Amino acid sequence: MSGLKERIEKQIEALSQFTATPGKGTTRLTYSKEDLQARKFIKEKMWEYGLEVREDGFGNIFGRLEGTLKDAPSVLIGSHFDSVPNGGSYDGPAGVVAALEVAHSFFKNNLKPKYPLEVVALIEEEGSRFGGGLMGSRGIVGLLNEEEFISLKDQDGITTAEAMKSIGLDPSLPKKRDPKTIKAFLELHIEQGPILEEKGIPIGMVEAIVGLTQLEVTVEGQAGHAGTTPMNRRSDALVAAANMIARFPEIASDEGEGTVITTGRLNVWPNGANVIPDRIVFTVDIRSGKEERVLDAVEKVIRWIESYNGNGIKTSIQQQLYMPPKAMNQEILSLFKEKCNEMNLPYCSLNSGAGHDAMVISDVTDVAMLFIPSKDGLSHCPEEWSDAGDIAKATEILYETAKTLTEAE
Amino acid sequence: MSGLKERIEKQIEALSQFTATPGKGTTRLTYSKEDLQARKFIKEKMWEYGLEVREDGFGNIFGRLEGTLKDAPSVLIGSHFDSVPNGGSYDGPAGVVAALEVAHSFFKNNLKPKYPLEVVALIEEEGSRFGGGLMGSRGIVGLLNEEEFISLKDQDGITTAEAMKSIGLDPSLPKKRDPKTIKAFLELHIEQGPILEEKGIPIGMVEAIVGLTQLEVTVEGQAGHAGTTPMNRRSDALVAAANMIARFPEIASDEGEGTVITTGRLNVWPNGANVIPDRIVFTVDIRSGKEERVLDAVEKVIRWIESYNGNGIKTSIQQQLYMPPKAMNQEILSLFKEKCNEMNLPYCSLNSGAGHDAMVISDVTDVAMLFIPSKDGLSHCPEEWSDAGDIAKATEILYETAKTLTEAE
Repeated sequence: MSGLKERIEKQIEALSQFTATPGKGTTRLTYSKEDLQARKFIKEKMWEYGLEVREDGFGNIFGRLEGTLKDAPSVLIGSHFDSVPNGGSYDGPAGVVAALEVAHSFFKNNLKPKYPLEVVALIEEEGSRFGGGLMGSRGIVGLLNEEEFISLKDQDGITTAEAMKSIGLDPSLPKKRDPKTIKAFLELHIEQGPILEEKGIPIGMVEAIVGLTQLEVTVEGQAGHAGTTPMNRRSDALVAAANMIARFPEIASDEGEGTVITTGRLNVWPNGANVIPDRIVFTVDIRSGKEERVLDAVEKVIRWIESYNGNGIKTSIQQQLYMPPKAMNQEILSLFKEKCNEMNLPYCSLNSGAGHDAMVISDVTDVAMLFIPSKDGLSHCPEEWSDAGDIAKATEILYETAKTLTEAE
Repeated sequence: MSGLKERIEKQIEALSQFTATPGKGTTRLTYSKEDLQARKFIKEKMWEYGLEVREDGFGNIFGRLEGTLKDAPSVLIGSHFDSVPNGGSYDGPAGVVAALEVAHSFFKNNLKPKYPLEVVALIEEEGSRFGGGLMGSRGIVGLLNEEEFISLKDQDGITTAEAMKSIGLDPSLPKKRDPKTIKAFLELHIEQGPILEEKGIPIGMVEAIVGLTQLEVTVEGQAGHAGTTPMNRRSDALVAAANMIARFPEIASDEGEGTVITTGRLNVWPNGANVIPDRIVFTVDIRSGKEERVLDAVEKVIRWIESYNGNGIKTSIQQQLYMPPKAMNQEILSLFKEKCNEMNLPYCSLNSGAGHDAMVISDVTDVAMLFIPSKDGLSHCPEEWSDAGDIAKATEILYETAKTLTEAE
């Protein structure tokens, strides 16, 4: 597959230009101007590679190569194309570009699959605009229904439907996809952790994806003047929130077995230097490879937060997302490993510490994931980097596996 | 002074309409649309009361009644007209309206002062837009020079000069005022604390204003993915900041003698639910009636913050404001007390826990302040309330004192 690495490099570079924060990493929020730019780029590549393009009622993009069998289910390959604020160029796009290149090889070799091949580019996996995350895949499998979807707003109060229309998308198009139309889903993603790089292995076979929960916590207190309210008469919402957050690392470490707890987003009201804050809203992200660890950590976090109720402090907690750990499909993993062996590529098995669209889609079809190494294990930051050569190797495995699954000739 | 209470009530109500957050308290940031609306209202009142109106190069407003003595210094009366975000209707405006009503009484009684009387309405006392606070008064006395002023930016990167021009103000006008042109400064302000209400006394004689310091703290860590970065490999800037803030109340209480420490503003970057935060910026406001307490608390806070340096965490601290405690002028206070006695008004002495423009102006001239009660001691919140009858009583004291100081006939 000559020139594959260079084409991948070029496309990753092209997508990374569609950012709201040039020079400070990729910031591509769902339904933003940058989403529209990336969307146009992806759709043009799909057309160029002979795919039939459509978007669904969430704005997920599908590029389809028809199969020769009538009404046969499709083999889906892809990932998401949104980003966190000031994130990297690889988290999401690596998998979208790899899927486009699988289609390119089908096109170039003029392959006729029996089962349709579909390249998919999903929206709002990160949840950076509307919260919760994994929105595109949850929508496809029916875990996010019409009513829930249209009730979502971003931090400026803009609804999903308003945001979609602002970039020319149609929220009235079909949303949930009939599982009978899907034969399998394959996703390539960067590892976002240090394991593959440390071992010097280019391919990770994902055996399972960790369970994860996201809570949104609101702490309310009493505003007042910073100079005239004695310390013992305060109900300072920020001091209460700070005490809560300061102890999360201890709760995570006590839980053990790789349990992690993170507060990534926190906002303060009214946020003036000489006003005691009366309202704090923050997220708590809790993950573990073992479901009982997730459940136990959630319970401990909730108990700890609620212990601050009283003395003018009032807390409320909303569980925005719960996903149990998910196993990947062993038959497709065997195919991946077979292709690796044929290509003399070293690989190893690991779990994914991050949630992925593949995890959601595994509810309705056979799913498998490949990881490639992340430099220094870093992700969700401008320094995020992966080797286009590693992406190219993984793309070849996906291509060979897709040929087998679509029964292409 | 018939109808005084009603006129004060009406003007406070009118000014409270100029808010960016209707129904959620007064939000009137300096050089905003709401500043312009309030500014027009104040200038129209000044004209109506026969004052000559001018604005300086900071946008401070002066309404002048000329004196009969040639080149004599002015007696200034006034306060500020900006607000904190979602603040109340009285913090600032009460003193501006009282000063306008003193001028109204001079006008109505056709008084001819020997020394000029000037009503002043000052900008950016709260520091809610450009940080630091007390900007209008610091400018007048020369504590904020041209170069420092034009280098200031708000959180959106808009400079003071740009913001001024956007509402038609001229930053090239004179800034510092020659102290020789000022004979005295009188300020009425709400107490913003519970003492007067608890004692049932309508007038507080401010003996001193507490010392205060404002620090801006930046905590930098390493961003990373919330799911794939093990707890023991994190440099989480928010967890570090939370640990710092959680201990400030203890430092304040250990310091004692009414020392208060507040973090009112805190911002998180990149502020995404599944990204470990790599940058937190927060304020620390430290106050006490005793200078040695302020200095000692600042030292302890800095030592505590700096103890978090290392393991990928880097802290930096900027002292944005330092004001030692300031005594008020005893001769003017004696005049205030004399007028109270003549009017049979009960009063008591107290210190101000908040910084005020009077504190800054005391560097260059004789200064005195009156406090009136705050309902439930609340301020900097929509619930802030004071009795217009109490403001009217204080206005009468100011009027009588201004007559004496300007030698009006």
